[in-house]
Amino acid sequence: MSVSETRTEKEQKVDTRFTYAFEEGNASMKYVLGGKGANLAEMTKIGLPVPHGFTITTEACNEYHKAGGTNPKGLREEIEARRIDLEGKMGKKLGDATDPLLVSVRSGAAFSMPGMMDTVLNLGLNDQSVEGLTAQTGDARFAWDSYRRFIQMFSKVVLEMEGQPFEDAMSVIKDKAGVKLDTDLTADHWKEVVAAFRVLVKAASGSDFPSDPDEQLMLSIEAVFSSWNNKRAIDYRRLYKIPDDLGTAVNIQSMVFGNKGEGSATGVAFTRDPATGENARYGDYLLNAQGEDVVAGIRNTSPLTDLGNELPECWAELSKNMETLENHYRDMCDIEFTIEQGKLWMLQTRAGKRTAASAIKIAVDMVKEGLITKDEAILRVHPDQLDQLLHPQFGKDQKVDVLTKGMNASPGAAVGKVVFDANTAEERAAEGEDVILVRWETTPDDLHGMIAAQGILTSHGGKTSHAAVVARGMGTPCVCGADALSIHADEGYFAVNGTKVNEGEVISLDGTTGTVVLGEVDLVDPVPGEEFEMILDWADNLRTLGVRANADTPEDCQRAREFGAEGVGLCRTEHMFLGDRLPIVRHMILAEDDADRSSALDDLLKVQRSDFIGIFEAMDGLPVTIRLLDPPLHEFLPDHTEIQVDIARMEASGGDAAEITAKQDLLERVQKYSESNPMLGMRGCRLGIMWPEIYQMQVRAIIEAACERKSSGGNPIVEIMIPLVSLEAELETLRGEAIEVATKVMAEKGTDVEYKIGTMIELPRAAIKADEIGRHADFFSFGTNDLTQTTFGFSRDDVEGKFFPRYINRKILKANPFETIDSGVLNMVEIGAERGRANNPGLKLGVCGEHGGDPDSVKAFHNIGINYVSCSPFRVPVARLAAAHAVAEGKLEAK
Amino acid sequence: MSVSETRTEKEQKVDTRFTYAFEEGNASMKYVLGGKGANLAEMTKIGLPVPHGFTITTEACNEYHKAGGTNPKGLREEIEARRIDLEGKMGKKLGDATDPLLVSVRSGAAFSMPGMMDTVLNLGLNDQSVEGLTAQTGDARFAWDSYRRFIQMFSKVVLEMEGQPFEDAMSVIKDKAGVKLDTDLTADHWKEVVAAFRVLVKAASGSDFPSDPDEQLMLSIEAVFSSWNNKRAIDYRRLYKIPDDLGTAVNIQSMVFGNKGEGSATGVAFTRDPATGENARYGDYLLNAQGEDVVAGIRNTSPLTDLGNELPECWAELSKNMETLENHYRDMCDIEFTIEQGKLWMLQTRAGKRTAASAIKIAVDMVKEGLITKDEAILRVHPDQLDQLLHPQFGKDQKVDVLTKGMNASPGAAVGKVVFDANTAEERAAEGEDVILVRWETTPDDLHGMIAAQGILTSHGGKTSHAAVVARGMGTPCVCGADALSIHADEGYFAVNGTKVNEGEVISLDGTTGTVVLGEVDLVDPVPGEEFEMILDWADNLRTLGVRANADTPEDCQRAREFGAEGVGLCRTEHMFLGDRLPIVRHMILAEDDADRSSALDDLLKVQRSDFIGIFEAMDGLPVTIRLLDPPLHEFLPDHTEIQVDIARMEASGGDAAEITAKQDLLERVQKYSESNPMLGMRGCRLGIMWPEIYQMQVRAIIEAACERKSSGGNPIVEIMIPLVSLEAELETLRGEAIEVATKVMAEKGTDVEYKIGTMIELPRAAIKADEIGRHADFFSFGTNDLTQTTFGFSRDDVEGKFFPRYINRKILKANPFETIDSGVLNMVEIGAERGRANNPGLKLGVCGEHGGDPDSVKAFHNIGINYVSCSPFRVPVARLAAAHAVAEGKLEAK
Repeated sequence: MSVSETRTEKEQKVDTRFTYAFEEGNASMKYVLGGKGANLAEMTKIGLPVPHGFTITTEACNEYHKAGGTNPKGLREEIEARRIDLEGKMGKKLGDATDPLLVSVRSGAAFSMPGMMDTVLNLGLNDQSVEGLTAQTGDARFAWDSYRRFIQMFSKVVLEMEGQPFEDAMSVIKDKAGVKLDTDLTADHWKEVVAAFRVLVKAASGSDFPSDPDEQLMLSIEAVFSSWNNKRAIDYRRLYKIPDDLGTAVNIQSMVFGNKGEGSATGVAFTRDPATGENARYGDYLLNAQGEDVVAGIRNTSPLTDLGNELPECWAELSKNMETLENHYRDMCDIEFTIEQGKLWMLQTRAGKRTAASAIKIAVDMVKEGLITKDEAILRVHPDQLDQLLHPQFGKDQKVDVLTKGMNASPGAAVGKVVFDANTAEERAAEGEDVILVRWETTPDDLHGMIAAQGILTSHGGKTSHAAVVARGMGTPCVCGADALSIHADEGYFAVNGTKVNEGEVISLDGTTGTVVLGEVDLVDPVPGEEFEMILDWADNLRTLGVRANADTPEDCQRAREFGAEGVGLCRTEHMFLGDRLPIVRHMILAEDDADRSSALDDLLKVQRSDFIGIFEAMDGLPVTIRLLDPPLHEFLPDHTEIQVDIARMEASGGDAAEITAKQDLLERVQKYSESNPMLGMRGCRLGIMWPEIYQMQVRAIIEAACERKSSGGNPIVEIMIPLVSLEAELETLRGEAIEVATKVMAEKGTDVEYKIGTMIELPRAAIKADEIGRHADFFSFGTNDLTQTTFGFSRDDVEGKFFPRYINRKILKANPFETIDSGVLNMVEIGAERGRANNPGLKLGVCGEHGGDPDSVKAFHNIGINYVSCSPFRVPVARLAAAHAVAEGKLEAK
Repeated sequence: MSVSETRTEKEQKVDTRFTYAFEEGNASMKYVLGGKGANLAEMTKIGLPVPHGFTITTEACNEYHKAGGTNPKGLREEIEARRIDLEGKMGKKLGDATDPLLVSVRSGAAFSMPGMMDTVLNLGLNDQSVEGLTAQTGDARFAWDSYRRFIQMFSKVVLEMEGQPFEDAMSVIKDKAGVKLDTDLTADHWKEVVAAFRVLVKAASGSDFPSDPDEQLMLSIEAVFSSWNNKRAIDYRRLYKIPDDLGTAVNIQSMVFGNKGEGSATGVAFTRDPATGENARYGDYLLNAQGEDVVAGIRNTSPLTDLGNELPECWAELSKNMETLENHYRDMCDIEFTIEQGKLWMLQTRAGKRTAASAIKIAVDMVKEGLITKDEAILRVHPDQLDQLLHPQFGKDQKVDVLTKGMNASPGAAVGKVVFDANTAEERAAEGEDVILVRWETTPDDLHGMIAAQGILTSHGGKTSHAAVVARGMGTPCVCGADALSIHADEGYFAVNGTKVNEGEVISLDGTTGTVVLGEVDLVDPVPGEEFEMILDWADNLRTLGVRANADTPEDCQRAREFGAEGVGLCRTEHMFLGDRLPIVRHMILAEDDADRSSALDDLLKVQRSDFIGIFEAMDGLPVTIRLLDPPLHEFLPDHTEIQVDIARMEASGGDAAEITAKQDLLERVQKYSESNPMLGMRGCRLGIMWPEIYQMQVRAIIEAACERKSSGGNPIVEIMIPLVSLEAELETLRGEAIEVATKVMAEKGTDVEYKIGTMIELPRAAIKADEIGRHADFFSFGTNDLTQTTFGFSRDDVEGKFFPRYINRKILKANPFETIDSGVLNMVEIGAERGRANNPGLKLGVCGEHGGDPDSVKAFHNIGINYVSCSPFRVPVARLAAAHAVAEGKLEAK
């Protein structure tokens, strides 16, 4: 069930009553009745045995909060009437001394928030009705146990008392009685417990425990309303992006008891296996128990299928009901049931939560069974879930020693020995060891170590830090910006929250969640099976949005292709400027003169050409968008503060004068490239305007590589992309220069290759002026990372760790705009798309920011008419599925 | 005449002929015929004595260049026909051996580009026609002198020969003849000169000097076309923002001669004094001379009024013609005339260039004379000219020793002794000396020295650098980013292009042009007179756009008020955080804990309150928009690189351990605030969200100050402005917090003051989401400096000095977008204005970026419906006039 669903007009304009009897509602009313209430109504409607009850609407909860914690006018009267109606249906009365009605009071929001809000059971018990319950059941022990459970729960939920004093009081009585287990206590013991509990309540609240069932009921309902805004509920909503203004419904339902002896039972059932998706009844139950005993895990439960032996008639009925429900809901259902003295009651149903593997298998099987359509099957698998199937994960149910959490920068889990530098990482890896590279943050110098490592952990930098970007590209798990880490690489350890971890010690990390664990965690390898391929096939058939990959090496391209990428949407040439090429690049930048620079460029030409040949080969027949050099040149240079520190140290300690002069000379040249805001400085196409020879070299390398591939029978599809354009004349000039070089190269080689020239739209001005810029572009690729930075005026490095947490906490930001496209930035993309096409209707539009791999963003891009997205290879399946979701959801909405 | 005028539709779609006889055109055709051609036609039309001729259109020139330097089809034939027509009118033929026609060939673009393009005179002379000229004039010496002048000019302009060989050849002949002056050479000598010149031409070009007049004519025309794209013409257009695609017209006109003896003369006349504006004939002339002799300054000219004595009839006619022209053009005219043997010929007229003082006086006088309307008078004064009247300037006609040029960061000129630090500046100034503070760049620490200095010179930083912003605010002349300067403050000197300037030496600088001069230059003080006030009064009556000032102190406010500001549009509170308050501010930022911070905030509260009291007093009855703290906090902290260098030095030289630890501690705290892109980091309202106590202190100080003013009978009009908003919830939250504080303060004080709360719109997202943000704002103020930075993705500090020159040179940028609002940024402002008003129709819209003082930008803001601009106090008169221009131009267009 997706959170992005919204209330329909009709649901919003529902009439103003605050309560519905179960038989008055249905499953479509979840925004009014909550998920639980709507499904209870639905089960009632289709004739399943549901204990009578009624639901108080979410609207009542919202009104309650709006009025600062006061029940809306008329609510109390409606509840009163419903209570009387319920008593009539049941032939019992709340608090009755002979045959009392007991009810449960449960929360139930539109989206499941398990355990986040409050519940009160056995409501209606007091000193009179407990006798009635005894009389009806002939079981004083059961009655008094129920009574003490009610007091305990009510005290916690409504009176907000601590649980420990109650536990302590029970222990005292058990000790006095000389018994260990609750089950060994007699009715008289429970009476004693009840008396003790009443004393506790009086002491804590200053009043007697409320004995009037109406008061009990109203207080419980208000407690459930309040629990909508308790801290854990708010945190949960934040995590799952559930809106705060939905409110919770409250369900008041006649109690049935699974703990009325051996003919009674309570359990949870799934119509299919939620872990594997296998089409078989699944679940567990307890004989003679109440529902919370199953959940609490106090006693060992029995597998559901045993019920056939123990209570065969009930099993047959339950089994039939399960089939009814699955066919009715056309989905795997999660069911709660209770058997009271041989009579089966259905207490709850909902779509069952499931693993990714299970979600896929169930969806595919149900299509085969003719139960759902392929469109529906696609919508049953959340794109983000696919990640579980593409990377190793921490195995379930392990006890782990969590050291700290950082940002979940690159998904998947890894285990290895801690190393603090790239060389050691490479050496140890060469010796066959698994290592985790731990750095303050990484730089281009660390690349070989990053390649060698199983995982990467940094204490600084956000999700676009060097470490994060490179790791995602390689599919290496990475946790970034774990700022609790204090790294003492010189002394061979890092410390975190008082724990010292030495080089060589084993740690595990989960880049999907950001968790860092001391010691080894068992990993589970992904096994995307046949159904995985099938659902993606269906998705491919449905979607209209193209999906490409961001890939910079032949290996990445290969992987992207295997994951179904239809081309490369972003090949970053600067990644080819690192590693063993860095000296050549530095040479080029710091060149003494043109001749010197030209020789460095020649060296780069050779290596770039061979890079491109490999990439065109891996992507033969598919388009490859190569972005010309983008980052500020000083990123390739040593840090100027470090040089200044070196000079100061050398000078103070009487260092060699010549060396000092050389350093000073280096400093001067490096400082020429130093900028106060490099993100807004000399980068992207501005480099191309200032040093035309760099782009000319790159275009030459690209076209030479394409010619060579074509001559050897390949089919290179070339797209040259010019980054960071803000002015029409930038693109016009650089396009002209590129065409000139390309024409020359093709003449030299005697080969003709087709190529396109386009631009990144990643600055607000480029979007605003897309009409002018579009005249000179064969394609646009929206660089939504940078566009988000400039549209917001946020430098991701500076804000993500520093003030986003506070912003999200204070509800100033709803989500991290670097993960899910922001509506303002999306509007900027829309403006760019519209204006770009206005002057150039055939303009192809792509998105190559990180958002290209985020399902919500992918859908947004589809909806504004983007042609393709491009994301890291591992996100390609996610994007394919998300693109299909967009179409399927569109069809649903159109209905 | 403004360059922003553009061709009307009608002019653009003019018919396709390439030539117009003078009697066929008129003054409105300057885009077709050039300024000179159009005015020759106009003078012909109104019956003034203009020698016959015709004009080749600018379109022909453009076609010529488009075809890569080839005459457009049909042009030669048209010229041929025109030549024949001209010969018919004159009764003479080009090259005729008995009575030859001679013509001049002159360039003439739509905008005057004096001396930038080429001219050929005396065309039509050859060995035959020189005899005809002799016969007609009876003056062989004159004829042969004219012939040699023609060869010399043609060789230079058309054949692109150097001038020196011709001068040398003449010297040889003069030596041989034993004469010193040209005028002493006889006809025979000139024949010799001609012969020698022909030899030179043959040697240089390999061909004979062309004797066919048709060939002479076509070659000269093409040379004039080509001169449109010579370097000095291009540079001139760049300087005056004249579009490159206008092209030049070519005027072919029958020659008349002012050098035919004592009854002949040539001169330049102005209908009013171009320096003072006085209503009196002004100009100079030479008897018996050709036009270029007047310009070249070879002989001393006579004042125009002497002509009445020497050639009274001609003077009477000229005087009448001048009156005719002034009344016809309704403007001061600049006229060229020639008297040939007693006959007056009008050769050119145009609107005369004039000083600011003259422009104002002429405009006001002409209104008084009933010649023009007030609207026209307003349009006759360029807003930028007013600057001349508000700041001291370098006096004219001084020989100065220009050291270097930097950016013209704050207008006006200053003279003083070089000092290299703020303390010395303050000390010397206290001793009564004038000093110029020379710094690498300035920091808040330098403020006292900047206040003390007459002028400020920095080698780094652009027009928004600290030095520039502070200097403009104070009205202190400043030249920034003079990067040829190599400053050796420790050694007490700076060097520039090989010149060493020691501390204490006198330099002069002109912040209006960016010029730095060695030694003392005489300055001229501005004297804005009665007419200045009058024209601004008229402007105020006409304009609808409000004009406020950016002012941070009571003194600035006072000055702004004197300059006519209608309020303060931007009062930057961070400037109040500098100087002697810096220690308190650092204390606040680096506070150990909340209590510590709170005590620093209390200190700041006191000083801020007293600041605001002063400001409200100075602006009593006018609105004051106070911006809450905006810059990143680390701007108030020491530089982290410097601390690291200190530590390294102390460590290497065995410094005191405790001191080192203290430094390291400081470093750690400073580094917490260090950012990779501070422009996009923790600043503006983000500070307000992170540390609510800072804004709360500021709001308290503002409201307390307003209450105090009100209690003492003042009328404070308070507007609180929250900077750098990108999200609706930022403004909503901070507005709520501000209102809470204000309400509390007013209750404490028992006084009610009205206040508004608004926001800066300076991020693209704020403009895009102005509909949401506008719901919580009483006003928007567009911060177009930052908006330009983020819309373009340009950091002004990083790009202005580094790549703007290249961008402008390569025509990629048409103008510096930080000076004149860019069309893309303007569109962003438009979107913000539109969307903001959509949800809040009463929203008041201002602009407080530097653009608020730029005339073109002011007009653009007027045109999109902005309510007011705010600029530095000294630009207020400029903005007032520009705002009036916008209305006057709008009226004209509507006609």
